[in-house]
Amino acid sequence: MPVPHELMASFVDVPVNSHFPLQNLPYGVFSRRSRGAQPSIERSVGVAIGNHVLDLAVLQKAGLFAGQLKSVDCFQKGTLNAFMQLGKPAWAKARATLTRLLSADEPTLRDNLDLKKQALVPMAEVDMHLPADIGDYTDFYASREHATNCGMMFRSKDKALSDNWLHLPVGYHGRSSSIVVSGTPVRRPRGQIVPPGAAQPEFAPCAALDFELEMACLIGSGNAQGEAISTADADDHIFGLVLMNDWSARDIQKWEYVPLGPFNGKNWATSISPWVVTLEALQPFRVAAPGQEPPILPYLEHPQRQTYDIQLEVALQPGGSDTASVITESNARHLYWTWPQMVAHHTAGGCNLRPGDLFGSGTVSCEGPKGRASLLELSWGGTQPFTLDDGMQRTYLEDGDTVTLTGFCQGDGYRVGFGSCTGTVLPVT
Amino acid sequence: MPVPHELMASFVDVPVNSHFPLQNLPYGVFSRRSRGAQPSIERSVGVAIGNHVLDLAVLQKAGLFAGQLKSVDCFQKGTLNAFMQLGKPAWAKARATLTRLLSADEPTLRDNLDLKKQALVPMAEVDMHLPADIGDYTDFYASREHATNCGMMFRSKDKALSDNWLHLPVGYHGRSSSIVVSGTPVRRPRGQIVPPGAAQPEFAPCAALDFELEMACLIGSGNAQGEAISTADADDHIFGLVLMNDWSARDIQKWEYVPLGPFNGKNWATSISPWVVTLEALQPFRVAAPGQEPPILPYLEHPQRQTYDIQLEVALQPGGSDTASVITESNARHLYWTWPQMVAHHTAGGCNLRPGDLFGSGTVSCEGPKGRASLLELSWGGTQPFTLDDGMQRTYLEDGDTVTLTGFCQGDGYRVGFGSCTGTVLPVT
Repeated sequence: MPVPHELMASFVDVPVNSHFPLQNLPYGVFSRRSRGAQPSIERSVGVAIGNHVLDLAVLQKAGLFAGQLKSVDCFQKGTLNAFMQLGKPAWAKARATLTRLLSADEPTLRDNLDLKKQALVPMAEVDMHLPADIGDYTDFYASREHATNCGMMFRSKDKALSDNWLHLPVGYHGRSSSIVVSGTPVRRPRGQIVPPGAAQPEFAPCAALDFELEMACLIGSGNAQGEAISTADADDHIFGLVLMNDWSARDIQKWEYVPLGPFNGKNWATSISPWVVTLEALQPFRVAAPGQEPPILPYLEHPQRQTYDIQLEVALQPGGSDTASVITESNARHLYWTWPQMVAHHTAGGCNLRPGDLFGSGTVSCEGPKGRASLLELSWGGTQPFTLDDGMQRTYLEDGDTVTLTGFCQGDGYRVGFGSCTGTVLPVT
Repeated sequence: MPVPHELMASFVDVPVNSHFPLQNLPYGVFSRRSRGAQPSIERSVGVAIGNHVLDLAVLQKAGLFAGQLKSVDCFQKGTLNAFMQLGKPAWAKARATLTRLLSADEPTLRDNLDLKKQALVPMAEVDMHLPADIGDYTDFYASREHATNCGMMFRSKDKALSDNWLHLPVGYHGRSSSIVVSGTPVRRPRGQIVPPGAAQPEFAPCAALDFELEMACLIGSGNAQGEAISTADADDHIFGLVLMNDWSARDIQKWEYVPLGPFNGKNWATSISPWVVTLEALQPFRVAAPGQEPPILPYLEHPQRQTYDIQLEVALQPGGSDTASVITESNARHLYWTWPQMVAHHTAGGCNLRPGDLFGSGTVSCEGPKGRASLLELSWGGTQPFTLDDGMQRTYLEDGDTVTLTGFCQGDGYRVGFGSCTGTVLPVT
């Protein structure tokens, strides 16, 4: 009989409200900060537990995994791709092994002081990296509230949603090369901008720099070109979720995006959180997804149309200020289109997915006073400045601003969290 | 004193009008068809010469390269990425070495029968593969004639070009995973389509399957995130050009593309030719690019605004027919935006390019009776069927149709060619 989540405990200390209790075990890629002058360049796969990282390369070399996971070196590659490619049964086995090894009543690791010293690294002593080699990155537009807000500003109030929006999860291909891990500063881009009232574009620093609060899923196992993945099978192909900040230059985007979509307005940087929370860890937080009307086509239907109850928050802290203001409060459960629907739509025509591919949800806005999940929406296209807790005003981001996304699922006495996704705006060069 | 191109000859036989004389030396990735049952899975970098492939891994192992190229194993990787990353000076040295080794009056390879037997493989005995790991694929829309034709059909005659089109090279991010090498069959996709006169979409096989004749460049050396590449430096970052067929499902595209651009209409397959013709080989074919009016912003100007005179052709052969009809004749010199302008624009906001990234030009249409380089344009949105040489009619592609793109530069007594990019349409599953 499985131990109830709220009772599961680890011999590793897990502070109250930690995002990383034994119930979570998110995967990430890290390197150890050496005590000497040079940082280590060796990357390893780990899971987060409390304020520590458990080095899975050490465990794998020590022979602590069984079966398939014993004979491969998937945790010694410096990315998660090899492990992702093994598929859902391998993910389940790894999680079961790690849950057991970290449990309070399991002596294997707990009582092996040498091994424990090698394998458990304080988070303060590691640098986090991108969790996977991301071959292709797709960004969807799955929040009805966000799409409606954008449509009202860019097009018209009467026809805010495009004709297709309620029929398919609208998405576009994004830029993989410029995806960076949380903590990486991002530089304000220059670009072609048509100043208000002007007839001609100029080349200038972005004056409407924005964040977008998004969730993103990492594809675990892919599909062959020409073969679709059904909504029923889609969860088997999803490895887990991260937080994502889809940094956006609104003035560049506005001028360039007709007719082929966002390009330089978005491709200069996208940040993701380092810890991938698996679908298994999210199971207790499944909730019904919003109803869909008009009815959708059969290839997008799925019997148990569920999503995840993930509380999301954005904090903005100006450079030099010691106050971070919470400017957005949202929840992933409001997304109109689910991850299985995005997977099924993306592959419906035969497009092949590969391990490590990233799908962004689009900005997760919702109803409510703080439900707008981008500055475009919060300042209503830059027309309504708002005041931060330290008294400063903002429409769009200023140089030195730090944007921090956080997210977690609230269990009974524990949290399954995503940690944070943070980045600071550097001035143009 | 360099030997004039028209006088350069190789000891390897080069048939008249071959695309691959000594003046070309395009790079590709191949594997040898074994004489036994199993095809070899070992991939090697080669250059095409006449009807042969010269295996550069063999030459590198034999110590025939000098300097930097002697101490690395860049030709033994199975992709061109490692060689691309070495940068333009290494590309120039490799070309000089190969030109010398293949020359009629150079005995090193010519007279070493063992080495020659190992290194020179008949094209009929190799399979070609994608030349590089393509991290990101971007498709531009650089032909004024094509953009005008599409705008007239999709939007209006008066305002065919979008407001931004004459100010920047419009582009979008495409899908890398589904890029295939010439010769790979492509499967007709299904997708959401609104039938003519209907109010609601249905999920159905594409009924408006199209090709697009494009050129594409492969990025050789990249740039750091946050740092732009100028038009003046852009050529140093471009490794070479290939032919590209941007297969398109027009009915899927039409319904999905507002507001974020093409998605499932394009991401199911893109074909490229296997041989990468280097910018060095194209130097003799530089011509002035079309003038630009209104004047462009300074970051897109380049002093010698040149492009390449590359004759392009599309042939369509129905399944079961023995006649291929030439339906398009165009030339890359007509592209309004040049490769350096595309590179400068793509990186202007700090987007980083990586070795192996692919830039498509967009459909290379031009004036003239056969200047339309897609069926969308040739059949004017499916409204004007046209007749092939064998008497069959077409608006869009039928199952079994084979589309073959070819392209070459005509020199005085020789051709620097791209070979072909071909693909056959398979029915939906």
